[in-house]
Amino acid sequence: MSNEIRSLNEECGIFGIWNSKQASNLSYLGLNSLQHRGQEGAGIAALNNRRINCIKNIGLLTQVFQDMSLLNQLNGSSAIGHVRYSTSGDNKISNIQPLLFEFTDEQIALAHNGNLTNSKTLKSDLEKRGHIFHSTSDSELLMHLVRLSDKATFQEKLKVGLNFLKGGFAYLILTKDAMYVALDRHGFRPISIGTLNDGGYVVASETCAIDAVGGEFLRDVLPGELIKISDSGLEIDHWTDETKQAICSMEYIYFARPDSNILGINVHTARKKMGINLAKESPVDADIVIGVPNSSLSAASGYSEQLNLPYEMGLIKNQYVGREFIQPNQELRESSVCQKLSAIKGVVKGKKVVLLDDSIVRGTTSKRIVKLLRDAGAKEVHLRIASPPFKYPSFFGIDIQNKDELIASKLSIEEMNNLFNSDSLAFLSEEGLIDSIGTKFSEKYNGLDMSYFNGDYPEYLYDYEYRK
Amino acid sequence: MSNEIRSLNEECGIFGIWNSKQASNLSYLGLNSLQHRGQEGAGIAALNNRRINCIKNIGLLTQVFQDMSLLNQLNGSSAIGHVRYSTSGDNKISNIQPLLFEFTDEQIALAHNGNLTNSKTLKSDLEKRGHIFHSTSDSELLMHLVRLSDKATFQEKLKVGLNFLKGGFAYLILTKDAMYVALDRHGFRPISIGTLNDGGYVVASETCAIDAVGGEFLRDVLPGELIKISDSGLEIDHWTDETKQAICSMEYIYFARPDSNILGINVHTARKKMGINLAKESPVDADIVIGVPNSSLSAASGYSEQLNLPYEMGLIKNQYVGREFIQPNQELRESSVCQKLSAIKGVVKGKKVVLLDDSIVRGTTSKRIVKLLRDAGAKEVHLRIASPPFKYPSFFGIDIQNKDELIASKLSIEEMNNLFNSDSLAFLSEEGLIDSIGTKFSEKYNGLDMSYFNGDYPEYLYDYEYRK
Amino acid sequence: MSNEIRSLNEECGIFGIWNSKQASNLSYLGLNSLQHRGQEGAGIAALNNRRINCIKNIGLLTQVFQDMSLLNQLNGSSAIGHVRYSTSGDNKISNIQPLLFEFTDEQIALAHNGNLTNSKTLKSDLEKRGHIFHSTSDSELLMHLVRLSDKATFQEKLKVGLNFLKGGFAYLILTKDAMYVALDRHGFRPISIGTLNDGGYVVASETCAIDAVGGEFLRDVLPGELIKISDSGLEIDHWTDETKQAICSMEYIYFARPDSNILGINVHTARKKMGINLAKESPVDADIVIGVPNSSLSAASGYSEQLNLPYEMGLIKNQYVGREFIQPNQELRESSVCQKLSAIKGVVKGKKVVLLDDSIVRGTTSKRIVKLLRDAGAKEVHLRIASPPFKYPSFFGIDIQNKDELIASKLSIEEMNNLFNSDSLAFLSEEGLIDSIGTKFSEKYNGLDMSYFNGDYPEYLYDYEYRK
Amino acid sequence: MSNEIRSLNEECGIFGIWNSKQASNLSYLGLNSLQHRGQEGAGIAALNNRRINCIKNIGLLTQVFQDMSLLNQLNGSSAIGHVRYSTSGDNKISNIQPLLFEFTDEQIALAHNGNLTNSKTLKSDLEKRGHIFHSTSDSELLMHLVRLSDKATFQEKLKVGLNFLKGGFAYLILTKDAMYVALDRHGFRPISIGTLNDGGYVVASETCAIDAVGGEFLRDVLPGELIKISDSGLEIDHWTDETKQAICSMEYIYFARPDSNILGINVHTARKKMGINLAKESPVDADIVIGVPNSSLSAASGYSEQLNLPYEMGLIKNQYVGREFIQPNQELRESSVCQKLSAIKGVVKGKKVVLLDDSIVRGTTSKRIVKLLRDAGAKEVHLRIASPPFKYPSFFGIDIQNKDELIASKLSIEEMNNLFNSDSLAFLSEEGLIDSIGTKFSEKYNGLDMSYFNGDYPEYLYDYEYRK
Repeated sequence: MSNEIRSLNEECGIFGIWNSKQASNLSYLGLNSLQHRGQEGAGIAALNNRRINCIKNIGLLTQVFQDMSLLNQLNGSSAIGHVRYSTSGDNKISNIQPLLFEFTDEQIALAHNGNLTNSKTLKSDLEKRGHIFHSTSDSELLMHLVRLSDKATFQEKLKVGLNFLKGGFAYLILTKDAMYVALDRHGFRPISIGTLNDGGYVVASETCAIDAVGGEFLRDVLPGELIKISDSGLEIDHWTDETKQAICSMEYIYFARPDSNILGINVHTARKKMGINLAKESPVDADIVIGVPNSSLSAASGYSEQLNLPYEMGLIKNQYVGREFIQPNQELRESSVCQKLSAIKGVVKGKKVVLLDDSIVRGTTSKRIVKLLRDAGAKEVHLRIASPPFKYPSFFGIDIQNKDELIASKLSIEEMNNLFNSDSLAFLSEEGLIDSIGTKFSEKYNGLDMSYFNGDYPEYLYDYEYRK
Repeated sequence: MSNEIRSLNEECGIFGIWNSKQASNLSYLGLNSLQHRGQEGAGIAALNNRRINCIKNIGLLTQVFQDMSLLNQLNGSSAIGHVRYSTSGDNKISNIQPLLFEFTDEQIALAHNGNLTNSKTLKSDLEKRGHIFHSTSDSELLMHLVRLSDKATFQEKLKVGLNFLKGGFAYLILTKDAMYVALDRHGFRPISIGTLNDGGYVVASETCAIDAVGGEFLRDVLPGELIKISDSGLEIDHWTDETKQAICSMEYIYFARPDSNILGINVHTARKKMGINLAKESPVDADIVIGVPNSSLSAASGYSEQLNLPYEMGLIKNQYVGREFIQPNQELRESSVCQKLSAIKGVVKGKKVVLLDDSIVRGTTSKRIVKLLRDAGAKEVHLRIASPPFKYPSFFGIDIQNKDELIASKLSIEEMNNLFNSDSLAFLSEEGLIDSIGTKFSEKYNGLDMSYFNGDYPEYLYDYEYRK
Repeated sequence: MSNEIRSLNEECGIFGIWNSKQASNLSYLGLNSLQHRGQEGAGIAALNNRRINCIKNIGLLTQVFQDMSLLNQLNGSSAIGHVRYSTSGDNKISNIQPLLFEFTDEQIALAHNGNLTNSKTLKSDLEKRGHIFHSTSDSELLMHLVRLSDKATFQEKLKVGLNFLKGGFAYLILTKDAMYVALDRHGFRPISIGTLNDGGYVVASETCAIDAVGGEFLRDVLPGELIKISDSGLEIDHWTDETKQAICSMEYIYFARPDSNILGINVHTARKKMGINLAKESPVDADIVIGVPNSSLSAASGYSEQLNLPYEMGLIKNQYVGREFIQPNQELRESSVCQKLSAIKGVVKGKKVVLLDDSIVRGTTSKRIVKLLRDAGAKEVHLRIASPPFKYPSFFGIDIQNKDELIASKLSIEEMNNLFNSDSLAFLSEEGLIDSIGTKFSEKYNGLDMSYFNGDYPEYLYDYEYRK
Repeated sequence: MSNEIRSLNEECGIFGIWNSKQASNLSYLGLNSLQHRGQEGAGIAALNNRRINCIKNIGLLTQVFQDMSLLNQLNGSSAIGHVRYSTSGDNKISNIQPLLFEFTDEQIALAHNGNLTNSKTLKSDLEKRGHIFHSTSDSELLMHLVRLSDKATFQEKLKVGLNFLKGGFAYLILTKDAMYVALDRHGFRPISIGTLNDGGYVVASETCAIDAVGGEFLRDVLPGELIKISDSGLEIDHWTDETKQAICSMEYIYFARPDSNILGINVHTARKKMGINLAKESPVDADIVIGVPNSSLSAASGYSEQLNLPYEMGLIKNQYVGREFIQPNQELRESSVCQKLSAIKGVVKGKKVVLLDDSIVRGTTSKRIVKLLRDAGAKEVHLRIASPPFKYPSFFGIDIQNKDELIASKLSIEEMNNLFNSDSLAFLSEEGLIDSIGTKFSEKYNGLDMSYFNGDYPEYLYDYEYRK
């Protein structure tokens, strides 16, 4: 699925440091290890002498801070940062985060990962009260609600505001006194806390970012929690008690980095297990197993191990074909998968190949890769997908909100097999997926959000309900 | 070795199209697949209506042609292109290739891969005759020699010029009438020819670039050949008969892309065989085998297969840490390998690990990766290098010209083992390497340049002889 | 005063087109002729198919639209634009105008010239109601007030909002149905309306911009007016009847372009008259008259004409020393006036010179120019200022809010004469200025804001009252 | 003529400092005051510790050195610099100067103002000897000739080289030991020498640049001189004795800055005299005199003074319409003179106007300005040109090499008057021009090159002879 990067994207990575030397430098390193979660924009807000400064722009983190003197302007011992994916047309600078609110009496910086499902309704209500919104993203909404509250403390106001929100959110909020972390009631998005050698704290969307700054993992943030990190240390509060764990299964399948642990489970290990379970469910008598680099290599190695088949490097990815690579014209565009992936003829020629992919979204890539392998001389190509058919749109933080974009919602497995020109096609079962990830929560599906595959959304969809 | 990218670099990739639609677009695609051979500069010269236009600049190919209208300016049915690595300080625009010479009576474009060993002497002689050189690279030299010749045809002049040159070179030259390919007498650098569907020809440093434009491999260029491609087709000529095959062994070990074939041998397959042979020579009773991504994965899979040990993904590479990534400051710089590579704790924790790397140059990376694995909980780390100790500088096209940069020229294997803090360290033998690659030429070392390992240079070093 | 450009700056120029072909192209031309009113940022918002798109950025107009394809994206037959000067530190992109408000139910674009005097109070009140402000400029305020109103029509809401505001403002507002122009109750800032050949309308801060797009001057906007321009034509409404004309006298003295007419009076002609009146009040028996280019040339020609003295080009301005010119270092910085202005020795050598300048703000430039003329051989230098001593800060749209920046508020004329090392120094009287401009309004000072010179502010200063 | 800037351009300004603190900073200031002589490219080469470093690029000087750290890299106490105009299509970076030649045994930097008339022949001859040229400008030629010479010293070699050259040239050459200045045998281009307070020397195309760095004018360089400036001081040598003064009359008419002195004559004063003489030759009974800003203001003031007519500011120039200003589209392009110049209606309305311009090249501007004045209400427009009809192309350093571009070579004065729609048209006579400038050399035309007007070229045209 690595080639469908524009069709399936998480919306953000967030990262924060409280009370450590080089807070913005560490944020730069941490955000860089979260760059896979969003490549459209990046920014860091740092607290220095009780003032917050923010620098952000469109582009990769390294592009935003290409001039290192920008980073040096962000002095201070606390900071929050954000990397953003945005849907096309809305990649305006005003949507890049962290958002920095400059009130007459205080400054607040905010970074958000997720998608609210009742933002349209709330925004409309607030506009009727005369409020003005400046970004088209829904991340700004919380602050309006907070400012409307007449509670005594910021923490209490935050709780009031959070209780209005529906959908998926992990918030990181910086004030002159504290850093707050809040997670939605289902825990759709991962977010973890670590400690630093010098006594500081680190918060990140994935544990790989805690590792990247030399932090020690402390704990995951749990559904409904509102955690305050200040000079008094870590205070665990709750904005709601009505919680039900439903972590996004696509984080394990595709989004997260293999070296991250989510709720205690290593992502690579879960993916390998998906390959093992898929091999048990849908074995093939083949010569070699090949994974689509890089996201499907874990599953491929599990599949090959289970069936004792050689795991081979039959496809390689061109590291210089990034987002900025443009096919010169339409005629050449159709061959574009060839620019991103190449088959090693010496490996696949004359072989019965099992091709592992982590998931299928639009299906265009699958078709191209099968062709690529056949052109390289593969005798047979058996496509194995290490997740169930992706049939239902997502509304909690992934940019697929339309059934029509999902090939599995329109075609049967047999029809897809014909379309892709593969010799056989099989998907991992839902049970196989749940077993592979291995969460043990008491909630339905062991605490996983499986709605991509079965349409069983963990909560009412509010503004999106009609799209179901 | 992926992390020592600045310390060991080939100097170029060259690519050409003769007589095909979209010559410059195809050159863009072909060069992009050769981008791993040089990231400092890129350019394309295209022939249109008997006039040659050239666009080139500092940066990656996609940066140079970020404005696609530039590519559209390069109309015509023939083109040559170049991607360049240059030593620091000399990455001036005047050194970026192709070089376009604008004479009163003709235009000639030239692209060069390799390094001449007598350029200093020749340049000094020509300056005494009043010649002026404009680039600090030695690629310009050939044209001075050609222009001095009083032979009747350009092809004859070229032969005269080439006979003055010593060292490694693959030239691609474009005139209004033909495209010429010339290879040095030892064939240090790979260069291959393919055909296109519409009757055109393609020439490239590696066969992966022929694949990238949908070409069909025709033949490799052989030592001493001067090939003319024109509207009359392909004409194979020789500028010398005194040839002795000595293809650079580092192309197989590290430089070339795994899906390329060099002299008929697939690079991935050769690397896998290096892993197999290394396993036979220096086996370890370990739990898992891990390769340094991406260049050592082939060798790691061979090593694991031979010993029937699990081949695991224990290290992952951060795709967003490219050349442009800068550590914010010195204190953080020492941890930089952590930004490029991460260990998956779940995989390595408590394990006896065999770590495969393709080669060791300065040794700084090896030390860091061993530490990375130990920090992730590895019980033992056995380092296995899929090539012999790199002890001698290179003068035929790689930017290592100083023994002092090579750790293996200063320390014994035992000393290196101590330095890296590995539990054991072993290198592939020279015989093992030669067997792995599997060339069958009658020349010494089966036609390989093995001087990196044994100092047995295939020819006299001229200007560099004193450095031996 | 041309060299004190950073110390005295109007805050904006605004321009709009309703219902004409090429609305954004005309806006580009119109704004370019208003560029002297603000060089920090520029933008255009265009209405197309009932949707408003806005492009804006930091820099000169030609820099913002360097890529002409940006302008082509702004299709549509109506548009408003803005050029901005901003005080240092606040030249953030979020402050660049037009501001585009994206409500759930409508879009509104707004451009503002002027400065509100009660914005701090209003903003604080609105924040208490939960409103959030996103720019640090006060231009956003009006929209909050409009959205709070429960009146039936946008026009009625606008009136409610405008009635909250104090200070100087000229607003240009674009909705999908109409373009609105509103002027404060004193008419501090100039703004005029013209017609286009094809039936369209043009609105601009100065008439030179109407000329620049080939428009025909129709009328000036008057204090308290709210004009609606729609497909039904021009509708003149009033948001208040309590008006008192007090047009900014500095527009005539320095800000406006000489070819503009303000309230029917040509700026060049007014300046020339200032020179004539100054000659009557403070004649000098000199050899030649010289003006500081370019803003003081009109006054100099009037002065010379009145006294029948030769008007000479003794100073020339280096057109390549713009805002982007930076003195390499401090040592050279002190000589910077020499980079901007040069004296023609052949003209001034041995002469008794009258040097005309339009005004004196900080006085640093005056000192330098006198020295420049003396170094060039002038025998005597008599400084004549074509406006009264500038003693009081401005709060209605000019970036001087501090008495300490004004040399005339600290020193007597004699002390200034000593400081500048001039042979004599004289300023135009207040009466002379009023007579020169020649407005005939019944209000005090013939309808001019003369507060710069006498501290007699046309209205209470609200948030700034304490600074008086 | 200010609006025909693209049709008549001098090719360069050169500047050098020997042995002074801040050599490159002073060069930056000096070149900035020469920016009017060329806006396509700029560069500075500085000598530090006997090594020369050079930084140059396309664009204005302030753009090339926008990053001030570049200037700081150019340490050292001696430097030469260059601003360049280049004909379209050849504004390649390889043509930007100074040229820095890196020989095995020495470095030489060279800056050139002028145009050689036998470069094609010389280049062709040298190419036959095997020489390779890298720029398309002819500035590189001298160095090839110098390097071919077998004379003992660099100074002797330079003399040999210079004796091969025909046409116009002022060279500034920097070696590790000295700075050399050489002028062609006719002294077509101005170049002057000054001294600095700290004992250093300054060399510049115009004296305004000597003033700009606080230097004291020492002497002009004379035809045939080769001046060596070294730590031993100033040594005046001659590369030829066959000299004949023929300074370019267009320098006085249009190119040079009014505050510069050329061969002891102030440019502004000469222009004013042109206006006076023109008034004597072709008086008009008019109401006011207007000059085309900025280059024709001197002549206009002379004209008005002579006839005792009011000299009025009837046209103003938009300072923000520079080279980078692009008309959005063709339809608007035709009105482009309106963007650059505006008429002040209050000044010209109902008046009989004399419009002074310095010269007419293509005539397109004249037509537009007459229309601009008529549209503003002028009753009559009498066009007076302060130089004779420009009929013959130039080959010594101005980019007009084609008769067809010159309106005066195709039309009679009466025909031009009709074309421009002026009420009358008159040019200054050749005698009037010569008298105005006031050179007193014994050579023909008092030492002026008058070939623009009479085709009497001071020397044979060599490669261009056929174009006469």
